Order: sequence, then structure tokens, then C-alpha cells
Amino acid sequence: MQRYAIGIEFCGTQYRGWQTQQAGIASVQETIEKVLSKVANETIILHGAGRTDAGVHATNMVAHFDTEAIRPERGWIMGANSQLPKDISIQWIKCMDENFHARFKAIARRYRYVVYNAPMRPALLHKQVTHLYQDLDVKKMITAAAKFEGTHNFESFRAAACQSNQPVRHVKHCRLFEHGRYLVLDIQADGFLHHMVRNIMGCLLEIGQGLYDIEHIDTMFAAEDRKAAGITAPADGLYFIQAYYPEHFDLPQPPLGPQWLNLAE
Amino acid sequence: MQRYAIGIEFCGTQYRGWQTQQAGIASVQETIEKVLSKVANETIILHGAGRTDAGVHATNMVAHFDTEAIRPERGWIMGANSQLPKDISIQWIKCMDENFHARFKAIARRYRYVVYNAPMRPALLHKQVTHLYQDLDVKKMITAAAKFEGTHNFESFRAAACQSNQPVRHVKHCRLFEHGRYLVLDIQADGFLHHMVRNIMGCLLEIGQGLYDIEHIDTMFAAEDRKAAGITAPADGLYFIQAYYPEHFDLPQPPLGPQWLNLAE
Repeated sequence: MQRYAIGIEFCGTQYRGWQTQQAGIASVQETIEKVLSKVANETIILHGAGRTDAGVHATNMVAHFDTEAIRPERGWIMGANSQLPKDISIQWIKCMDENFHARFKAIARRYRYVVYNAPMRPALLHKQVTHLYQDLDVKKMITAAAKFEGTHNFESFRAAACQSNQPVRHVKHCRLFEHGRYLVLDIQADGFLHHMVRNIMGCLLEIGQGLYDIEHIDTMFAAEDRKAAGITAPADGLYFIQAYYPEHFDLPQPPLGPQWLNLAE
Repeated sequence: MQRYAIGIEFCGTQYRGWQTQQAGIASVQETIEKVLSKVANETIILHGAGRTDAGVHATNMVAHFDTEAIRPERGWIMGANSQLPKDISIQWIKCMDENFHARFKAIARRYRYVVYNAPMRPALLHKQVTHLYQDLDVKKMITAAAKFEGTHNFESFRAAACQSNQPVRHVKHCRLFEHGRYLVLDIQADGFLHHMVRNIMGCLLEIGQGLYDIEHIDTMFAAEDRKAAGITAPADGLYFIQAYYPEHFDLPQPPLGPQWLNLAE
């Protein structure tokens, strides 16, 4: 038995999300499992570093699978990518020992949320950014983003359907920056609750529009009630960009996406 | 009668090209004409600054139309954009006098061609860039691009189906530059022949792969024969980014696209 880790880029627009959830609409996970099972000539089960909602994208979703099939690493990638739909692409693969687990060994996850702030809606990338035509107080939003850093009870910022048994998360960084007509939120935490990034972004967008002040975030946290916080920002602008593991696993570190933003760090 | 100029962004993937050509597959032009006709409550005919092939995109295609309908500028844009498909968006509109003509008064057109140069194919933007996994000699390609500047007979770089009655064009600039994992060709000329940008890009990609030397471009020009030049690069990576008019028309100058490249100048 050999364990493999893979890094996957996908455009989530056409999918039910990462995880297999309901019949009829494909998930990214089952789409890749089907193709890898053909390449392996046996049933392959994927374990992902995180779940993503319908419509959310990923530039480096990490997953692992076990197999008896013996293929060179390049054979796996070429075999899979030639059969996968154009909106899913395996970017790397690596042989791992049994101690590796894409979900349980991940020590942090990182997302980016991309807002296109311009008077008219975009035709290009229309499913890969969230469009806002309103003037935004970006300086205020940048200050507000930092309020989410540190250890907090995120009860007010998780979906009612969230299955996690505790709402405390440690946010390593939560930074907003301007990049041409784009606003990018970059957030890293040990783990994320259901809709957490979209709910934080929704709050920042409302602050940017002057609906309430930065200090109101404290009230939201204190309420520990979803109804006390703001809107849920749409899925279109959200990207899962990285999963972090202990160094000894030595996983490939592709440039942080989305590639078209061309942002380092 | 009032003449209006409009600026349009579109993703060309789902269209037969800008111009109405054959039944069954919609062109960008007829898609916009249908919607503007509804807004105007009369038949609207659009005249574009240039034609584009199937699959080619635009960030600022300029066009004009005449109408008896009286609407505020914002009314035209909002009315049209709410009914247009998500992959087409009007970015601006301006009242013009009868002397303006989007095609005949254009003194130059500008395109960008975007190559994504990385080992694995992209899943995001897969129809909005051309993927090349090969190592490319970019320095050589940059030098080669400059060979296309100036006045040349582009017979070897136009499609057999090209309807233009003469093949001489003046290329104001033809520059290639690196931008992260992207290679961008930026080319401006008084006018372009059918497939001209894609044929120039095809030639540069072959030079980048070491298939022939820069000097071979002279031989290609001298042959005045399409068969003497290289491949035609795919439509996916090509963007019509600007049409230029005499200053007195005072048209809006939106930032040069594609927006996601976030490149000035």
C-alpha cells in the first residue's frame, strides 16, 4: 500500500463543493476519485484538507489517497489530468508515509477572498470574483480585518448548519489589501468553521459601506449569535489557497494563488 | 437621431466571435443588439471597432449605434447589463455626434495575448489564457517581438481567409513581458489582418521553444506566404484591449485590461 499526497487547483463554479453531499450534482472530490480510480484500476478514496462550499475555488487543495497500484508520479498526474474536466487540475503529487493525513495532520488552512470593486460588473472572471460597485472605505476595512486576528469564539461568524463541536479558532493573520481594482482578504487559521471566511468578509464589506463602525465587531463577537453579525459574502470570490503541515512532511509549496493575482508571500 | 459610443467587456468563449456570421451560434454583436433593441424599443444595429475570432475576449471593444430612443446614459447601461448574459458587460456609454464611427474613425487597435507558462495546466482561467508547459527562452522572445514593429507586409502572418485588400500594416509597438507565470504580448497597430496577432504569437512561441532563430522572421516576411511562417496560437489567450480615436472625440479611457493582470501603461 502506498499513500500519495496531491495538490489540486479547481474552479468550483460547476460543483456542489469539495465533498460528496448529494446525488445529481457532482462534487470535486468524487470527480477526482472517479478519474484516479480509472488510472489506478481500483477504487480510490480521497481525503481532503478541508471542505469547500458550492462555487468556492481552490488553488492548492491538499488531499491524500492510498493505493496498491504502482505508477510513477508523473504517470498519476498525466493520466488524471488528461481525463479530468478542464476546471480541475492536479498540480503535484508526492509519495508519503502512513503518518501523513491530509485532514488530521493539517495545522493550518489559508484562504483568499477577492472582491472586484468597480462601477460596472465584470464579464471576464464573473464567477471568480465578487463584484461590488459601491464606494468602499478601504482604510477602515483594513483596520477592521485585524480585529479578527487571534483566538476568538467565532459563534457569530459560523453558519447554523456548522457541524463543528466548538467555535473557538485561532486566526494567525487576517489582512485586507488593495490590488488595482481588487480587494483581497488573506486569512490563515488553525481551522475554519462553516461559512467563516464568507461571514467575516460580509462584515468587512458592510463596514466598508459605512453600515456600522469597527467597534461593532466586539459586540458581534460578544453576542455569540449568528444573527448578531452581518451578511454572508457570495461563494464566487473565495479561494482555498493552502494547507499547512509539519515541516518534516516536506510537501511542495507552489506559489500562493489565485495565480492571476500574481501576489507573493 | 442620437449616436452613442459604448465600451464592452466580454468573455468570447461561448461566442462565434464579435460579428454575426452564421446561424445557430450567437455572436457577441447580435447578443448585444438584441438587448439594446429591447431597451430602445426599436431595432439597434451595432458597428464595432474591430472583428474578433470565436473564443477571443475583449476588455474595451468600442462600438456605436444610432437610435431615436431617448434614455439617460445610466439607463442604457443598467437596462442592458441587467439583461445581457454574465459574460458580456457594457462598461461605459457616451453621446457622440454623427462624425464618430467606431470602425472608420479608429486610428489604432491594441491587443494583449496571455500565455500561462507552468508545468501543469491551469483549472482557473483555463479558457482565458493559453497554457504552455515547455521551458521558453523568454529573453529571445522579447528580442524577437520587436522585429514586428514598424511598417511591414504581413502577408505571411494573415489567414488564407483574410478579406483585407492589402497586407501592409504599421505596428506601433510589439512588446513581450513576463508577469509572474504569465507571458504577455502587447501589440498596437493601425489595423490588424485576420489571425495576425495569433500568427505573430505562434511565431514567438516557436522561437521561445528554440525551433528557429530570430533572424528567421526576416525570411518569413520576405516569403510573403502564410506557409512560410509558424503556427496560429489558440484564441483563448487573446484580448482586444483598446481602440484609439482622434482626441477630439474624447472617449473614456478605462484601465487597460484584462483587469486581472493589473498592468498599467
